[in-house]
Amino acid sequence: VQAVLAAELERQRPLVEQISPDLAGVADVVQDFLLNGGKRLRSAFCYWGWRGGGGADEDAAVRAAASLELVHACALIHDDVMDASDTRRGRPSVHRQFADLHVRSGWRGDAEGFGESAAILIGNLCLIWAGEMLVTSGLASDALLRAMPVYDAMRAEVMAGQYLDMLEQVSGGASVERALRVARYKSAKYTVERPLHLGAMLAGAGPDLIAALSGYGIPLGEAFQLRDDVLGVFGDPTETGKPAGDDLREGKRTVLIAAALEQATPEQSAVIDRLLGDPALDGDGVAELRGLLIETGALDATEQLIADLTKEALDAIAVAPVSDTARTVLVDLAASATSRRD
Amino acid sequence: VQAVLAAELERQRPLVEQISPDLAGVADVVQDFLLNGGKRLRSAFCYWGWRGGGGADEDAAVRAAASLELVHACALIHDDVMDASDTRRGRPSVHRQFADLHVRSGWRGDAEGFGESAAILIGNLCLIWAGEMLVTSGLASDALLRAMPVYDAMRAEVMAGQYLDMLEQVSGGASVERALRVARYKSAKYTVERPLHLGAMLAGAGPDLIAALSGYGIPLGEAFQLRDDVLGVFGDPTETGKPAGDDLREGKRTVLIAAALEQATPEQSAVIDRLLGDPALDGDGVAELRGLLIETGALDATEQLIADLTKEALDAIAVAPVSDTARTVLVDLAASATSRRD
Repeated sequence: VQAVLAAELERQRPLVEQISPDLAGVADVVQDFLLNGGKRLRSAFCYWGWRGGGGADEDAAVRAAASLELVHACALIHDDVMDASDTRRGRPSVHRQFADLHVRSGWRGDAEGFGESAAILIGNLCLIWAGEMLVTSGLASDALLRAMPVYDAMRAEVMAGQYLDMLEQVSGGASVERALRVARYKSAKYTVERPLHLGAMLAGAGPDLIAALSGYGIPLGEAFQLRDDVLGVFGDPTETGKPAGDDLREGKRTVLIAAALEQATPEQSAVIDRLLGDPALDGDGVAELRGLLIETGALDATEQLIADLTKEALDAIAVAPVSDTARTVLVDLAASATSRRD
Repeated sequence: VQAVLAAELERQRPLVEQISPDLAGVADVVQDFLLNGGKRLRSAFCYWGWRGGGGADEDAAVRAAASLELVHACALIHDDVMDASDTRRGRPSVHRQFADLHVRSGWRGDAEGFGESAAILIGNLCLIWAGEMLVTSGLASDALLRAMPVYDAMRAEVMAGQYLDMLEQVSGGASVERALRVARYKSAKYTVERPLHLGAMLAGAGPDLIAALSGYGIPLGEAFQLRDDVLGVFGDPTETGKPAGDDLREGKRTVLIAAALEQATPEQSAVIDRLLGDPALDGDGVAELRGLLIETGALDATEQLIADLTKEALDAIAVAPVSDTARTVLVDLAASATSRRD
């Protein structure tokens, strides 16, 4: 996956530089972003959906699967603009890099605005390049057209999920059920189920396999998002690549938070409401919120939910109509997606 | 075009509402944006590229052409975020509408940030729906796959052009040549040449027709952008749908401005540099800049360039290998794209 992504970006680079040498910086940033870090989960699920659907181990399938990393680059680059996150994978986020370039170059106008605008455009470019990489992957045209509806659904669902996520955040939603629905669209379908479906449809899978992959993909994807939520609060910044407590400062309405609010005493609720979403939250505030997430039992409940959902996924894949090779890898991927290490 | 866009949005609406009833507002905003206003130039050029390439008058081609209006909706919605424009087509821009919704709903957090994030996501959704509408237009799969490289180039070029545009703006570029290059990518290729190519490739056109369409499309598209630049400064706000002087307050480095700076005395240059890009520029400042654009001869020079480029386009289409019907419409479209009325 790393190699085919690197090759694809080397193919695009002269095309953009030919428009203007000023665009070399854009190609550098995309390359840097894409080739450093990331668990490559979406491309792995897509590739193993393909293999699960009877596809052979061939380069075209790897290219098609790897294109999902470009979709994801768009999602992350735009996400960092929307959340005003300065850090991604332990490095400055894309909008931050362009804001810094603006300052360093002594350009006129608003450096922050320039950085955000550049990141919006570069995110769009990644989304466009993703589609191009899929279509030029080398897979047969009937396979591509057959898989297009899944591809479109995947991309539309993640946008819808992100909007619902924002809506929960600003409206102060506090129900585990609603938080789980956001996790389903923003993450479970987008990260696990749809990549599996895409690969399987490319390989010509029938409805039985598609349904079986949903039985594995949806609960696993939800467990993945819950793990991400827990790491966002309790994770080690050197592993998550994000400063500790960022999710709390942003006021994200995760299942973990919703579970705490559902179980909290009125006094505990008041403290959570006061601290959550405070952009100036310091280390003590983060520690206080962590304490409340433990005391209310929210952390334990979320860990239990992760374990239950992961088991549901493993039970589903155990009986799914896929080869034993694919089954073994999908069991491993379930562990990797829900692991306590980011 | 209006009818097929309306039908497409009615098809998408239940799909998003099924994810969550909270998404009804998103479908409303896209519908409202797409069905009110816009000259439909890109879909017209695509359709007539198709007819020029020998395609018949059929619904599938109209649907494919209309999908470009969704690409353009993405560009405009993101553009308004990047330029912090509160108005589009005489109505609040999409990010403004969502910021207002945030205030009206009494939600927590930053209303402006919520509006911008919603607009980024909705722009992305339009880009995704555009691709879906093209692929499901009903055209044959070999035609679609043949045309994909043009579609990808078109979308990547507009992103690159917009980035170069920003770069000129912040670096205070002042060369007519550089401003024209921005106009070529941001606008000429995206608005005229590539839509024509897309239609022609869908119809199976050969390299001769593609080259002939470039001969018409590039100069016409440049003339279109120059007309837009002139209207942005001298146009009637009730016709442009944008407040007078917005382009001047944003400090856009158009060909018009570059021509003024190239011809200005040092005193005139200093005044332009001081006023251009001042977000607080008032009516007097706008009038002063307009005066300088006239005095330096920049307005006349730009009008002359528009006339020359339009003539070049008309000369090219006069001898292009297209049917007389297509030729007649393309001549009319050239007039419409460069007309002094928006």
